[in-house]
Amino acid sequence: MSRTEINEYGEFGLIHHLTKNIELQNASSVLGVGDDAAVIDHFGKQTVVTTDMLIEGVHFDLSYTPLKHLGYKSVVVNLSDIYAMNATPTQITVSIGISSRFSVEALEEFYDGIYAACEEYGVDLVGGDTCSSQKGFIISITALGEVVSEKVVQRSTAQKSDLICVSGDLGGAYIGLLFLEREKKIFAESPNVQPDLENESYVIGRLLKPKARKDIHEFFEEKAVLPTSMMDISDGLSSELLHICEKSGVGCVIYEDKLPIADDSKAAAYKFELDPTACALSGGEDYELLFTIKQEDYEKLTLNEQISVIGYITDSEEGAKIKTKGGNTYDITAQGWNAFKK
Amino acid sequence: MSRTEINEYGEFGLIHHLTKNIELQNASSVLGVGDDAAVIDHFGKQTVVTTDMLIEGVHFDLSYTPLKHLGYKSVVVNLSDIYAMNATPTQITVSIGISSRFSVEALEEFYDGIYAACEEYGVDLVGGDTCSSQKGFIISITALGEVVSEKVVQRSTAQKSDLICVSGDLGGAYIGLLFLEREKKIFAESPNVQPDLENESYVIGRLLKPKARKDIHEFFEEKAVLPTSMMDISDGLSSELLHICEKSGVGCVIYEDKLPIADDSKAAAYKFELDPTACALSGGEDYELLFTIKQEDYEKLTLNEQISVIGYITDSEEGAKIKTKGGNTYDITAQGWNAFKK
Repeated sequence: MSRTEINEYGEFGLIHHLTKNIELQNASSVLGVGDDAAVIDHFGKQTVVTTDMLIEGVHFDLSYTPLKHLGYKSVVVNLSDIYAMNATPTQITVSIGISSRFSVEALEEFYDGIYAACEEYGVDLVGGDTCSSQKGFIISITALGEVVSEKVVQRSTAQKSDLICVSGDLGGAYIGLLFLEREKKIFAESPNVQPDLENESYVIGRLLKPKARKDIHEFFEEKAVLPTSMMDISDGLSSELLHICEKSGVGCVIYEDKLPIADDSKAAAYKFELDPTACALSGGEDYELLFTIKQEDYEKLTLNEQISVIGYITDSEEGAKIKTKGGNTYDITAQGWNAFKK
Repeated sequence: MSRTEINEYGEFGLIHHLTKNIELQNASSVLGVGDDAAVIDHFGKQTVVTTDMLIEGVHFDLSYTPLKHLGYKSVVVNLSDIYAMNATPTQITVSIGISSRFSVEALEEFYDGIYAACEEYGVDLVGGDTCSSQKGFIISITALGEVVSEKVVQRSTAQKSDLICVSGDLGGAYIGLLFLEREKKIFAESPNVQPDLENESYVIGRLLKPKARKDIHEFFEEKAVLPTSMMDISDGLSSELLHICEKSGVGCVIYEDKLPIADDSKAAAYKFELDPTACALSGGEDYELLFTIKQEDYEKLTLNEQISVIGYITDSEEGAKIKTKGGNTYDITAQGWNAFKK
């Protein structure tokens, strides 16, 4: 029997390979694998479902991640997928695998974070599974949400001339990770050196306490804006933009000088001699929303300073491009985090 | 800070401890933590959701579990929870964590099993997550189902005088596990000895290829039987009976000579000098349904030879009892598998 290594596919290729022959059998299964969440119909009102697995040592490092933050973030990353479908999250299930290294008090802290997120976003924890693991902490959360059928927003429906928008600012979480990894290394080498993170609370907060953009979802509802396509930014803007272009069969142009990057993130990036634009394009875990809107909705968006218009959709033949501040044009390439290509 | 060890609570105690203060916020959250599955309302039609995590080395041993069987069983154990709510499963999400030890071909085998179960039970795989793990294979599946609201069957609604029933036969999966563990040990000591499992295909099949009782769910529908309470038997009959008694605030009497045990399971138990009754009471992973019905439905049940009436519900003061073949009465105690008490 032949052996194909998993990293020959990459994460998205692997999922596609393993799921490409699925034929949906239930009339209620409106949308399956391939978007932020699946969609299940219930007589016009639709249930949206998404799931994420987080594994210690792969997705998080407990040496610098407080358990309460971890619980909170584990929920938020799932809710972000629900908002990315333009749906309202309603319920979650939480399954954990834990080794005996964890005390009940440690788990309580983790659940405090879970409950804090549930309260903030108005979702109910309705089920789960708790089991022992031989090694490390494993978290698997499934989130459900609801949306009326005509308001579901997918990745595959961007159209030529639509404006490309992002919420909040980008790149911060990645730079926060660099700081924490650096401090961890310094601490391992000289345990008496105090961590020097005081000025980096913004980028570290972006990594450890991300927000799901409930506010943007509510803004769409309030202003009657229906994005033409949407997804959340977990792997980096470049990677997500390419997803939307590929799924929608379109191209795009974005402008470097329009990318929203916080001053704190810029300052922090320079300390690592990194280009803030590169961090915004390829850094992951910001959990902002990337979406496209029809041009006629532009006026409405100007009311919300949390939304930046960064470019527009083109024909697919024109490819996916970024225009730099210096006036050059480059292809956008996916260099987002990829669990299998480390 | 104090440290409480997880095993001081046990699995169910731990879940209860961590979830006891939940207050459901959404009107659609009809039933949360504490049954086989949660229930979410959609205008009369209800969505049922359940989730299970399976970890290599804890829940399964790849040295004797073919990956295709593992994929199939991972789905079945979730669907069993959906049927235990008297609902019809409709969708699943599958998340896996895998180390680079696994080839794409190995994953394809696993997914072949997943798809075989999807086809057999008419459910759609609609989403999931694939990520790398540092060690071992981790599976987390969430299943959704639907049921009209007046037909949801919980654990907490058994009433005095109801008849206690089980589907299929009990104890086989546990004995199958004993055989496989024994052969594994023999193989480790003398790799040239061929495994002697030919006559044990029934009990080994019970462990590796369990069925979810779709047929029983359909029988209830066809004969208009609505169980008064129900759950699936994953931890052993004793443990599950005590759950129903505790949640419903009732007691029970069951009869040893009524317990359904296959002849093959009995013969296999004797080879280990085990009492088949003990295996039926305390062995887990049979994935049969345990349910109670009103006495007036008794006639209908006699039409189905896959259903055995094993006892009846009493007042809670009378406790949970088993009457043996020899005429003695004993308390039923939970000795089911417990992940944290090994």
